Amino acid sequence: MTSIDNFWAVVPAGGAGTRLWPMSRSSSPKFLRDLTGTGRSLLQGTWDRLAPIVDDRFLVVTGQSHREAVSGQLPEVPDDAIVAEPSARDSMAAIGLAAAMLELRDPDAVMGSFAADHVIADPAAFGRAVEVAAAAARDDWLVTIGIDPTFPSSAFGYIHLGDDLPGHPGAHAVRTFVEKPSVDVAEGYLATGRYRWNAGMFVVRPTVLLELLAEQDPDFTAALRAIAAAPETLEAAWDSLPKIALDHAVAEPAAAAGRVVVVPASIGWDDIGDFDSLATLLEDTTSATTTVLGDPSLVQAVDATGLVVPAGGKMIAVVGLDDVVVVDTPDALLVTTRAHAQSVKKVVAGLKDGGRADLT
Amino acid sequence: MTSIDNFWAVVPAGGAGTRLWPMSRSSSPKFLRDLTGTGRSLLQGTWDRLAPIVDDRFLVVTGQSHREAVSGQLPEVPDDAIVAEPSARDSMAAIGLAAAMLELRDPDAVMGSFAADHVIADPAAFGRAVEVAAAAARDDWLVTIGIDPTFPSSAFGYIHLGDDLPGHPGAHAVRTFVEKPSVDVAEGYLATGRYRWNAGMFVVRPTVLLELLAEQDPDFTAALRAIAAAPETLEAAWDSLPKIALDHAVAEPAAAAGRVVVVPASIGWDDIGDFDSLATLLEDTTSATTTVLGDPSLVQAVDATGLVVPAGGKMIAVVGLDDVVVVDTPDALLVTTRAHAQSVKKVVAGLKDGGRADLT
Repeated sequence: MTSIDNFWAVVPAGGAGTRLWPMSRSSSPKFLRDLTGTGRSLLQGTWDRLAPIVDDRFLVVTGQSHREAVSGQLPEVPDDAIVAEPSARDSMAAIGLAAAMLELRDPDAVMGSFAADHVIADPAAFGRAVEVAAAAARDDWLVTIGIDPTFPSSAFGYIHLGDDLPGHPGAHAVRTFVEKPSVDVAEGYLATGRYRWNAGMFVVRPTVLLELLAEQDPDFTAALRAIAAAPETLEAAWDSLPKIALDHAVAEPAAAAGRVVVVPASIGWDDIGDFDSLATLLEDTTSATTTVLGDPSLVQAVDATGLVVPAGGKMIAVVGLDDVVVVDTPDALLVTTRAHAQSVKKVVAGLKDGGRADLT
Repeated sequence: MTSIDNFWAVVPAGGAGTRLWPMSRSSSPKFLRDLTGTGRSLLQGTWDRLAPIVDDRFLVVTGQSHREAVSGQLPEVPDDAIVAEPSARDSMAAIGLAAAMLELRDPDAVMGSFAADHVIADPAAFGRAVEVAAAAARDDWLVTIGIDPTFPSSAFGYIHLGDDLPGHPGAHAVRTFVEKPSVDVAEGYLATGRYRWNAGMFVVRPTVLLELLAEQDPDFTAALRAIAAAPETLEAAWDSLPKIALDHAVAEPAAAAGRVVVVPASIGWDDIGDFDSLATLLEDTTSATTTVLGDPSLVQAVDATGLVVPAGGKMIAVVGLDDVVVVDTPDALLVTTRAHAQSVKKVVAGLKDGGRADLT
């Protein structure tokens, strides 16, 4: 894969990943963890995937409390390429600030925003999709990459495809972004063949993004440009920025105005939203036993299937449970089932309510 | 409760309790553990229950490797009251040696054998049953205490009641001992009202026990008496003793000869054979959440029932599982269900096969 000229990766590295507790903690969230057993964290995997495309044109936007960990995991990334947010203010502020910085730095820049906590099984296909997207973005489109859905998920938003985009084979107009549907509705979407998952990947010229935002909220764009021009004001100005997702602030209104295109792609994408999706990602479907993330010699399974994470270093025996999820860590243990994976966030809420926020 | 003259408690303290792994280990078996959350081990609970009946007439028979732990848990029991077996040779050798020792020590002795790893919820009722049993034993009967069955268990042997024993209200002849039946057969037993569980509690004059044994195996009785007369020969003589349960060696043939009586009793007895019976013993049936053996602040249960043992000191979250069993210890964790409680022994076998006998 060859790099794409003037193409910048912007990687928002945030999110608590509460449904992946106790592997993911507020102090050590999902993107800093090796959830796939490759020896690389999700953030490092994101870097590995993007480096061939961007060379050193890489910006990470993360919380101040994670700055040091991010820097430690990415020794190739210089300190001034790690933007530390004073507080979490959702994706528009984070990605918008990166856009304002790049607008000053490289007038020919095209940026792509890619979350730090996703996995992509086919990086070559991902690279090809980014190439198509970057070319369309140079023509001033806001471009999103639409993931070919593999099942009728109710956990993702969907992108409704319109006509082919002339001059950009592989790109289509976006009719609309739709919010997370019910499984029934999602089944209908899949049957049409005209819907893709919205993975929050946007490719765009920084100025285009900021001007699309300005059409909705000119003060927001002005504030972002002011911070980029005087970085020492970041701390003071940050907390007054609106807390809104890029999808709502820009992508949905721009789609309604016919200014968004989508590049459909089959890239083996997963956001590892919970232990059920992690189990699907890791499981060997030819084997009727537990999937182990970690040292298999620490797991004794008897008539059991599911996911076992022996991260506490101790022997784990699982007997007579199907689709179980057992996650052991040095200070906390989770036992649930794949079907209840979404409810793990209730544990995190319960711990906070019970005065054990130190474990969350 | 007043003590019973010349009545001696003989407490065999053995058994690995593999179905209670990882709480019970070969190095720290069931009888040394506090399985009921009272702050006292099962052995200590046995002593607490018997001390009012026997004063200081108490003998423990245990393995050499547990001698020190037994002594540490029972500071009231002098060292010469702890008989250390060089190896496990089943109950006839253990209880028979105690009988031979008591025969020499106290010609008027009546002994009762009571396992170190059972629980009895109603010690007063137990004491009354022992009193009836001891009186019958003085008339040279081999007396067993028959537990009123509370459900048609297939895990216990049964005692078939015969006629009332003249002169001993509350005692009955024993028609026969029957092996562990199927649940169907056990239901039939319960319907008759004439069957009791065999909990292995025998009350008898030492000489009567040894002479009943001699009728089957005179060499065995002679060997036991020889060891008792010359305790320094224990080590050398022990391994040549037959390895047989007292039930088979003495109780069954004696019952066939019409020499055994039974005192039925409702005493809240449980042998805590596995985590299912432990859960039953501990559960608060009015509450639809997990039962915690240990510190309840270490358990976060969301839509879950079953038994949780946070003995590893870490937080345990259980989400969306019914009748689950989670036992955490510093070096091993078990996750199973109450219905699979019997299969826990397969884990222990698997660990031994896999070179991790250190954990068993």
